[in-house]
Amino acid sequence: MSSSISKRLIVVAAAAALVIGAQAAQAQTAPLSAQESDPNVMGWMQGFPPPADKMITQPDSDYFSFPKLRWSVCHLREFLPTEEISRGLGAPAPLSYPSPAEFAELSAQIDALTFTPINGDAEMTWEESLFANYTDGMLILHEGQVVYERYFGCLEEDGKHAIMSMTKSITGLLGEILVAEGVLDDTLLVRDVIPEIGDSAFASATVREVMDMTTGVQYSEDYSDPNADIWVYSRAASPLPKPEGYDGPDGYWEYLQQVEPEGEHGDAFHYKTINSDMLGWMISRVTGKAVTELASERLWRPMGAEQDAYQTVDGKGVPFAGGGVTAGLRDLGRLGQLMLNGGEINGQRLFSAQVVETIAAGGDPSKFAGFPTIPNGSYTSQWWVFHNEHGAYAARGVHGQTIYVDPTAEMVLVRLASFPRAQNGFIDPTSLPAYQAVAEFLMGR
Amino acid sequence: MSSSISKRLIVVAAAAALVIGAQAAQAQTAPLSAQESDPNVMGWMQGFPPPADKMITQPDSDYFSFPKLRWSVCHLREFLPTEEISRGLGAPAPLSYPSPAEFAELSAQIDALTFTPINGDAEMTWEESLFANYTDGMLILHEGQVVYERYFGCLEEDGKHAIMSMTKSITGLLGEILVAEGVLDDTLLVRDVIPEIGDSAFASATVREVMDMTTGVQYSEDYSDPNADIWVYSRAASPLPKPEGYDGPDGYWEYLQQVEPEGEHGDAFHYKTINSDMLGWMISRVTGKAVTELASERLWRPMGAEQDAYQTVDGKGVPFAGGGVTAGLRDLGRLGQLMLNGGEINGQRLFSAQVVETIAAGGDPSKFAGFPTIPNGSYTSQWWVFHNEHGAYAARGVHGQTIYVDPTAEMVLVRLASFPRAQNGFIDPTSLPAYQAVAEFLMGR
Repeated sequence: MSSSISKRLIVVAAAAALVIGAQAAQAQTAPLSAQESDPNVMGWMQGFPPPADKMITQPDSDYFSFPKLRWSVCHLREFLPTEEISRGLGAPAPLSYPSPAEFAELSAQIDALTFTPINGDAEMTWEESLFANYTDGMLILHEGQVVYERYFGCLEEDGKHAIMSMTKSITGLLGEILVAEGVLDDTLLVRDVIPEIGDSAFASATVREVMDMTTGVQYSEDYSDPNADIWVYSRAASPLPKPEGYDGPDGYWEYLQQVEPEGEHGDAFHYKTINSDMLGWMISRVTGKAVTELASERLWRPMGAEQDAYQTVDGKGVPFAGGGVTAGLRDLGRLGQLMLNGGEINGQRLFSAQVVETIAAGGDPSKFAGFPTIPNGSYTSQWWVFHNEHGAYAARGVHGQTIYVDPTAEMVLVRLASFPRAQNGFIDPTSLPAYQAVAEFLMGR
Repeated sequence: MSSSISKRLIVVAAAAALVIGAQAAQAQTAPLSAQESDPNVMGWMQGFPPPADKMITQPDSDYFSFPKLRWSVCHLREFLPTEEISRGLGAPAPLSYPSPAEFAELSAQIDALTFTPINGDAEMTWEESLFANYTDGMLILHEGQVVYERYFGCLEEDGKHAIMSMTKSITGLLGEILVAEGVLDDTLLVRDVIPEIGDSAFASATVREVMDMTTGVQYSEDYSDPNADIWVYSRAASPLPKPEGYDGPDGYWEYLQQVEPEGEHGDAFHYKTINSDMLGWMISRVTGKAVTELASERLWRPMGAEQDAYQTVDGKGVPFAGGGVTAGLRDLGRLGQLMLNGGEINGQRLFSAQVVETIAAGGDPSKFAGFPTIPNGSYTSQWWVFHNEHGAYAARGVHGQTIYVDPTAEMVLVRLASFPRAQNGFIDPTSLPAYQAVAEFLMGR
């Protein structure tokens, strides 16, 4: 096997998308601004064909490095095999908007809001924060009505954007729905659900520990270490032909069967993507359905989505339950509204209120550490719970993706972004206080 | 470069999909029947994970060989990178149906129709022909109303199916629309539209010759010859990393730049897929849009499609204009109805009536040969014209795909299929007379 092919294999792996950006960002010290790196300004993939230096191709360029990722986050299906999350065939359920005049006034008021970043930097306006955060799409719903909606960079209202690890929250929501319905018993051990998990460290964890990521499993994401587990996972997950002589795991699920233990199950929260794929496997086993099909049946169709979503797959057609979804901004707003409404949308109950109650209640913050911008948080059913005064919780994905639900303010906020660095710890300082400022503004309307 | 990697590269190439089936079919002498090879009966990809012998994966299995192709025709995006042909965000334009009672009666009447196959085999009923032809979906519209609709095998009403070379007819329709609007001058030489076509044999052909496939270009599809052009094209088109040491063309368009001459332009019709991709390139050059975007803007959105379609792409993101589209059955019915109505649908004119008139008039049958089941045919703007008493014309794709438009009977018929052999010459004997029988029945209603 040539090292060139091997390197390329890694580059195209679905799981690697999450990683490459972080790597590239580490190499960047003064990245281009949001305006400078706007993919339309950069001219990526414009022309038939584009000039060679404006081409973003797979595999010979690193398509998920900044600033190319600002284009690629809207185009993942053009690089990778995918499965559809169907909206069905009917008419979408329209979102509610104020009058155009009222909408314009609200937008202007929100743009002018000011807040102080967490890190103590100078006060900033809401609108400035959009650029500071390399925002591609921002949607805010208040009391079920869209009060703010803007598109930047590669995203348009009829486009879609990679949601990265927010995928986990969809997987977790599906899992929690199945738990509430008695289809998935969260007190079982993984080996009771998936007997062929064998000697994997997952075998002796409970379903609940997998859902809450408190398993004791080895999975390193040190990108500077060529032997880190993330690379092995990427190679396993790649839909490309395995190189000759490759004898590692083939696909997400084979990887999960050979995970080594690290620490004790239940002791502490460790953010490790393999838990999400373990949960995805258990969901498929107990329902007989791919997570894509289940997300369509339980969420996308009944909530009246206006676009299909899609999910990348490994070489065996298994959707990447830990990070593979791409979706439209307003459909993610529908999903957030469904959460805020405790499982109801468009006058229809899609799942028990207990599902959202469990997620919003959060877990034990004493088991949660390592996220300085979320000092009192917890992680439950693949959702981030802030344990703040507003009882907010969120789906979060690298490079700035979020669905932020504030039950006190009756606010749902969706941001899609292509921040140069992967970790949300870099983006939270100019995001979380901004969300709080909008929430307070909306509560005072 | 290892021969194993090389072989796998070929297998996964988008263009090769069209080819592999034919190869495999040649090796098969008594294929399974439609009922026996039903993918649900075969059990392909059922279970999480499926048993190893029921797995259809890329690249290690030949996913487009019969009987696997009966599953794969509904799942191409799970193997290959694709681009969306968006339906937009609005409500679909519903198709018109008779009352359920009338619909059931019509279906029964059509199922019982009999006809004599072209090859002189024994008389057959319409319903028998569905199985003889490995039909996955059949939709018949009469006077704008759906009078027959059935799904088999891998296809359901909210699913999609590869349309293979019917893709060419979408490309050709877009080209003809641009000609009618004066955006594409069909009297120009290719080199006047695409200067960088260079010394390619295409350079001196006219746009019209490309549209009608009367160019004199070398392109062999002898599957038994490992040096046949189809394999070079497949390697160029593959979205997989090019193997080390590969020095052939990269992508559809680089291939087109090095095509050798064979015969004279304008002399005769030769069915060669590279013409469709040459046309696709010219369309993108004069419009500044990918064929996917143009198909969305000019067809899928305004005709009120109920599903997005999609199109496979090469490693540079160029859609396969000669065969890459996958779409829903009813949306193809809308497309056929749009043709039958001379460019109008849902009370809206999408393009000049001249467009359909040009296509339906057909070309010079004296230049057309080599298709025994279409003895007096011609090929115009990538549509097959039968020059029969009903003035019928059709989009056609390997393994049995067709949109068959019969203006005299005011009938549109769409068949999606996964016939074991690629060439429609094997399927026409039990198809074309069946279509004529339905047309006559509908005219007598």
